[in-house]
Amino acid sequence: RSAGSGGTMASESEAQRALQYEQTLMYGRYTQDLGTFAKDEAARLRLQEGDTPRPRHPSELLEYTQGRCAPCRVCALQCQRFLISKVGEDWVFLILLGLVMALVSWAMDFAIATCLQAQKWMYGGLDTNVLLQYMAWVTYPTVLITFSAGFTQILAPQAVGSGIPEMKTILRGVVLKEYLTLKTFVAKVIGLTCALGSGMPLGKEGPFVHIASMCAALLSRFLSLFGGFYENEARNIEMLAAACAVGVGCCFAAPIGGVLFSIEVTSTFFAVRNYWRGFFAATFSAFIFRVLAVWNKDEETITALFKTRFRLDFPFDLQELPAFAVIGIASGFGGALFVYLNRKIVQFMRRQKTINRFLMKKRLLFPALVTLIISTLTFPPGFGQFMAGQLTQKDTLVTLFDNQTWAKQGISNEFEYLGILEAWHHPRSNVFITLVVFILMKFWMSALATTIPVPCGAFMPVFVIGAAFGRLVGESMAAWFPDGIHTDSNIYRIVPGGYAVVGAAALSGAVTHTVSTAVIVFELTGQISHILPVMIAVILANAVAQSLQPSLYDSIIRIKKLPYLPELGWGHHEKYNVRVEDIMVRDIRYVTLNCKYRDLQQVLHSTKMKNLPLVESADSMILLGSIERTQVGALLSSQLSPQRRLLTLRQKVLSEDGHRLSDSSIRFQISTGTSSGSPARPALRKPLKPALKRVPSSPADSPPAGSTDHAGIALKSLFCANSATEPTEAQGTAYHKAKRVRISIVEEMILGDKMTPAEILEWEEQQLDQLVDFSSAKIDPAPFQLVEHTSLHKTHTIFSLLGLDHAFVTSIGRLVGMVSLKELRKAIEGSLTGKGVKVRPPLASFRDSTASTTEADTTALRQLWNRHQHHHMPREAGPGGDDDD
Amino acid sequence: RSAGSGGTMASESEAQRALQYEQTLMYGRYTQDLGTFAKDEAARLRLQEGDTPRPRHPSELLEYTQGRCAPCRVCALQCQRFLISKVGEDWVFLILLGLVMALVSWAMDFAIATCLQAQKWMYGGLDTNVLLQYMAWVTYPTVLITFSAGFTQILAPQAVGSGIPEMKTILRGVVLKEYLTLKTFVAKVIGLTCALGSGMPLGKEGPFVHIASMCAALLSRFLSLFGGFYENEARNIEMLAAACAVGVGCCFAAPIGGVLFSIEVTSTFFAVRNYWRGFFAATFSAFIFRVLAVWNKDEETITALFKTRFRLDFPFDLQELPAFAVIGIASGFGGALFVYLNRKIVQFMRRQKTINRFLMKKRLLFPALVTLIISTLTFPPGFGQFMAGQLTQKDTLVTLFDNQTWAKQGISNEFEYLGILEAWHHPRSNVFITLVVFILMKFWMSALATTIPVPCGAFMPVFVIGAAFGRLVGESMAAWFPDGIHTDSNIYRIVPGGYAVVGAAALSGAVTHTVSTAVIVFELTGQISHILPVMIAVILANAVAQSLQPSLYDSIIRIKKLPYLPELGWGHHEKYNVRVEDIMVRDIRYVTLNCKYRDLQQVLHSTKMKNLPLVESADSMILLGSIERTQVGALLSSQLSPQRRLLTLRQKVLSEDGHRLSDSSIRFQISTGTSSGSPARPALRKPLKPALKRVPSSPADSPPAGSTDHAGIALKSLFCANSATEPTEAQGTAYHKAKRVRISIVEEMILGDKMTPAEILEWEEQQLDQLVDFSSAKIDPAPFQLVEHTSLHKTHTIFSLLGLDHAFVTSIGRLVGMVSLKELRKAIEGSLTGKGVKVRPPLASFRDSTASTTEADTTALRQLWNRHQHHHMPREAGPGGDDDD
Repeated sequence: RSAGSGGTMASESEAQRALQYEQTLMYGRYTQDLGTFAKDEAARLRLQEGDTPRPRHPSELLEYTQGRCAPCRVCALQCQRFLISKVGEDWVFLILLGLVMALVSWAMDFAIATCLQAQKWMYGGLDTNVLLQYMAWVTYPTVLITFSAGFTQILAPQAVGSGIPEMKTILRGVVLKEYLTLKTFVAKVIGLTCALGSGMPLGKEGPFVHIASMCAALLSRFLSLFGGFYENEARNIEMLAAACAVGVGCCFAAPIGGVLFSIEVTSTFFAVRNYWRGFFAATFSAFIFRVLAVWNKDEETITALFKTRFRLDFPFDLQELPAFAVIGIASGFGGALFVYLNRKIVQFMRRQKTINRFLMKKRLLFPALVTLIISTLTFPPGFGQFMAGQLTQKDTLVTLFDNQTWAKQGISNEFEYLGILEAWHHPRSNVFITLVVFILMKFWMSALATTIPVPCGAFMPVFVIGAAFGRLVGESMAAWFPDGIHTDSNIYRIVPGGYAVVGAAALSGAVTHTVSTAVIVFELTGQISHILPVMIAVILANAVAQSLQPSLYDSIIRIKKLPYLPELGWGHHEKYNVRVEDIMVRDIRYVTLNCKYRDLQQVLHSTKMKNLPLVESADSMILLGSIERTQVGALLSSQLSPQRRLLTLRQKVLSEDGHRLSDSSIRFQISTGTSSGSPARPALRKPLKPALKRVPSSPADSPPAGSTDHAGIALKSLFCANSATEPTEAQGTAYHKAKRVRISIVEEMILGDKMTPAEILEWEEQQLDQLVDFSSAKIDPAPFQLVEHTSLHKTHTIFSLLGLDHAFVTSIGRLVGMVSLKELRKAIEGSLTGKGVKVRPPLASFRDSTASTTEADTTALRQLWNRHQHHHMPREAGPGGDDDD
Repeated sequence: RSAGSGGTMASESEAQRALQYEQTLMYGRYTQDLGTFAKDEAARLRLQEGDTPRPRHPSELLEYTQGRCAPCRVCALQCQRFLISKVGEDWVFLILLGLVMALVSWAMDFAIATCLQAQKWMYGGLDTNVLLQYMAWVTYPTVLITFSAGFTQILAPQAVGSGIPEMKTILRGVVLKEYLTLKTFVAKVIGLTCALGSGMPLGKEGPFVHIASMCAALLSRFLSLFGGFYENEARNIEMLAAACAVGVGCCFAAPIGGVLFSIEVTSTFFAVRNYWRGFFAATFSAFIFRVLAVWNKDEETITALFKTRFRLDFPFDLQELPAFAVIGIASGFGGALFVYLNRKIVQFMRRQKTINRFLMKKRLLFPALVTLIISTLTFPPGFGQFMAGQLTQKDTLVTLFDNQTWAKQGISNEFEYLGILEAWHHPRSNVFITLVVFILMKFWMSALATTIPVPCGAFMPVFVIGAAFGRLVGESMAAWFPDGIHTDSNIYRIVPGGYAVVGAAALSGAVTHTVSTAVIVFELTGQISHILPVMIAVILANAVAQSLQPSLYDSIIRIKKLPYLPELGWGHHEKYNVRVEDIMVRDIRYVTLNCKYRDLQQVLHSTKMKNLPLVESADSMILLGSIERTQVGALLSSQLSPQRRLLTLRQKVLSEDGHRLSDSSIRFQISTGTSSGSPARPALRKPLKPALKRVPSSPADSPPAGSTDHAGIALKSLFCANSATEPTEAQGTAYHKAKRVRISIVEEMILGDKMTPAEILEWEEQQLDQLVDFSSAKIDPAPFQLVEHTSLHKTHTIFSLLGLDHAFVTSIGRLVGMVSLKELRKAIEGSLTGKGVKVRPPLASFRDSTASTTEADTTALRQLWNRHQHHHMPREAGPGGDDDD
């Protein structure tokens, strides 16, 4: 019942709600929900229920002594205490997380490899008949993708897609429902395995971030069975941040790159202490992941996933740098184009109503169709022969990073392609054409494939395309300068593999807007010799891509309309000149401490704000706190509730005639006997409807059904039972349909109650004129405050840092306005695109600081001061003195 | 005059003060300093001064049209505008910063190499006479170090030491005076070059971070001559963060490691958008730094600084991992010992009074002495032969990372040491002994050398010691398993160089408490094949070192008592259970809006807080804002100022007799003619002394001397001139000495003024009973507020995020306490060591949430509500209504 500090996390949705609630606790806002009334109620309940056990609270260690399997729990507790005292709980958690994720990653890799092997085996075994071969080549991925799409759709639709945009939003402080549950975990793991096993151009990086986060959330809940320390809300966010690093780290066996990539992709402000956590867990995970490969005899020792063997002495010449820069810039354009293409495909699907309606009906048709097209085009004896269609993603990368030069001209005109390299060689064309076809085809295929509703990422496909583009440039350079550029005694030939590495990092960096792809390629290839070309290309690619398009993840955030604050671009100095006063909403509704219920009603009618400011009085406007809209609604409905009305009535009746009570009570019980199927909510009068539509039942002012015997009065208990079963928000529509029926019942009850509608209306009017008693309401005593002069830049920083969604603007305690995420988002997008809200002109920073705003403050202060001089003159107290009334 | 928004940055100290001021602006606190009086005054001044130019404001573009060299400036402006419109101002800044730092780094490296070369040449040329050789070997570094110490001492003592602790503090939001000036820059660059040129075991990483930051600050100021956008306080911090990355990046040519190291070392919360800036600038800087080496024909192409050539196929066996783990753990202990030793040396020097007094007198003796001892011990023909004394730091590293195995046993018993490797070989001992001696000697030498008051860091010395330790383990392993551990067909011998790399990363990571040293070694060596051993060793070393000692930089912060908030350890879950209410100061003094001057006086007497909360009244305790202590003092002194007294007197006199004024005026002018040399401050009566000691003259209430003609009244103008020259805080002692003299003069004036001391006392008592007029005071209208239930963990996060130094604790607008950095620091140290303030017991998280505090809140709310019901009943206003008084 008390959703307050460290609540019970029994069911998943409850846990999420608690998390959501605890989110608002950031920087110490807490909502005080235990007014004296509620407390008395709770005390009475406890007395009454006596020996029945309280709801199970996993963090209550004291309870371990009185459970069913008490000795077992005590033992577990001692084990856990020992572990914690020896190594620390965070370490245990991170080690477990790393271990689990490494096992998951390895098992998935194994399953994917088996799937791909099976396809190859089928394709190879049927080499007598091209048609059968084609059928096998096409059917296999189609079945896998369709299964993946269907399975995900049925089990947990949240598992679809990359997961990084959602994780970014969650780490921002927004709670997305069902995103970190076991069901989603299972759906994502199995769906991803099937999707990747199909051989489509899909990636696993993004989904792995999501899987690791879910793993952390589940592990956290599992470990909380052993102790009470896994429930802190701040800790949860920290652990999720570490989990994101683990996800990337164990996917590529790239711990450093993983940590950096996850930071860049998910965070706006990063706590350095999480860095250390992420590093530890990612390293451990990557280590286990690679050790499993050694133990499985796949490798002799721990090495990089895509090991390269470029020469160390002279990796590249300074004069090759322009070529690397060209790769970077072209990748920047390519990355932006990819994001654009991906978004356009999604938007096209959504906008075309006929397509959309058809696809909504046959959800599995779209994945099957896309898979069919793509696998038909890659069919090796068909068009696939011009684009190395028989190679899997992994083989493609291995061949692209190859150390040899494919297009050797001069020395030996024809190069011998050995092993899997042969796929790139076509007898009637040369390697350049194969590469160009590969890049062009894979580009749109990847953009299309990533829109399939299966768990999949876009990082790896983009990485492969980038590598192919780099290789193309490298081979061209090698053909242009057969003996290398360097003019000294030694001949250092150009290494096209190095170009492939640079291209891979640049294009994936451009699509994701990250620079840490540079680190990832070093860890993937096990060589760092090309550090400068890679860094230059990645930075150039980022510079180009960031000025053209949002990152792929931000693009998905926009498509999915997730609640996220856009980044401030850099180099846009307008953000320093826009101030809160330029963007804030000035005309806001507020609640005063000495207001009447009628005023509450008016406020609810006139605004849709979720949080209403509570001010001292309309003339002082001193901000005391903020109150949730639902709380205001609850206050109103409890004031106008029938039990109060009947109580008043009864008291009046009692004072008039003690005997008539029993009659009315009996009659009432009969009349409500007919309405037991459809619970009544008699307080709903017409003028209140719009305000009360969204008000859920508030447990604080309506004690639940099972605990009302103590009330002693039959009438009240009956109504309490009714109000406890009143419809929640989810049942809103049903509730509306049932309203007409109810109103008649209500009227019947009212008639039985010997109070005419006119009388009720009169009573309610009378009630509305009473002053509001705030003591039973949850009030946030310290809402975030800004002052008018705060710059947009600072406001953005504060909102990102603290995960706010609104802040009040005050001036010496006086409320003057409000800024919410919406205004901020508008202002940022406006200041960046030149549209949106009016942005202060560039010369605004030179405006006179003695201007109107300061004057307004001074006036306000003086006003306040004058007022106090008038009012408090008779009862002055020294600053050291105590309260005197 | 208006210290407000975007003030003039003419002189350096002024700029720093402005920066300091703007620091407090974070999240929108601004102090409103323009009361109506001050504004009127300013308006009058402006009218009077008329055509005289306003103080030059570099950001005012409009002024460029009216300067002396207007066309030149307009041209520069246009160039700059073109650049900004094409590439963005941040880019221009970062490119310039990178370029300048690369040039500085390369020039310094060149100068250092020349210095070291000169020493080697002198030593080599005198090989006929050992004594002469010794003299040369010892004198050269002693002279250089002494010069460096003296030069730094004279020019800018702030340049001494690493600079990273100071940068950490500055990035935390604290302003350290004179730390980012040109003088310090020059002192640091020259001092560091000399110090490193001496061949002492000193590093350049830390100083480079400082140099880059100074460079950024100077560049920022330089570029602000061309435009107004380089002055934003938030931007300055962002640029400093990028500069730190550049510092490390161009020192080691390690852009990625540089960014990460600077983040780990300087930040608590890191804005990801700065990451991108840092990356760009550090890459550019590292690129230029290495390109300069290529152009100078030192290198054929761009490669790593300490390139290694380990085999790629099989860098290490899985069974070697325990040895790497041992290196990590031992390095952890070693690192902690180094930090401990370093601190103990400093503390020993300080505590021993005789040593301390002696050293204070002869400041250059200590550096000279230390240099003498160290260089004597490394003298190659002497003890240096057992510890490779003739090698410079760079040569040592090159040899330690060498690919060959020195101690080959079995195959060829004696290994041929070629070139500089020969230094490690001693005919009468083996390489193990040399290494052990080297490690032991260098360990204490480095710890001692880094305490010398010259610009120097400890990273490189520690790095070298770590490499030597790793090499020792590696050679031992090689001796133990001459044919490698791997048992398969291929023989893979152990690579001791790889162990050296691991050891270097582990020990430097342990001393600095960073994991990014791993990345730095990859970039330094150009090989990433040992990534897993390095990561494992670094993490283990960190785990051990962090649990034993603070990092070297935190240790220096403690020694220097810099204002910094300690980190929360992790795995210490008590921090979640301690709440603000447990650590806050409850008994705080406050200022009420309706208080008298006497109350202000009392508050100033009874507390030393720098910021006083301003509450509505003593019984409501609603927090309206905070007021600085100095402002309170200024209010008091202006209320009791002689000009006010004389004005009252004069008005009284005027009303009594219009003719007597001219007489008293004349007499007064005569009497003050004698006291023109020692300006009087007559308001200083004895009861006010302690309160007013620290009150500087407030420009708002005492118009400066040159602008008082307008006042029209001779008496007032005279006193204004006097109060304008009143002593500032710096002249405090002189002012005290002169007080007696003054008091007599004051009394003379008073007599001339026809007011006896008794009358003055009476007048002052009367003045003190007046209500305070706050309209001319600076009030921070939005001080940071917490609630009682905020956890210590959250409080720490908020303080670090927002760079606060105090926060008020409120409960529904009511002030209930205050937390400052001091309490927080105590609480954190207490919760970590078990000492300090009382920490809530571990079971505190299970305490009943319905406990006393909530009750108190409710009571408070109810009280407030009741009070308002009583007071405001007659003038109720609806929530939609407007002000009605």
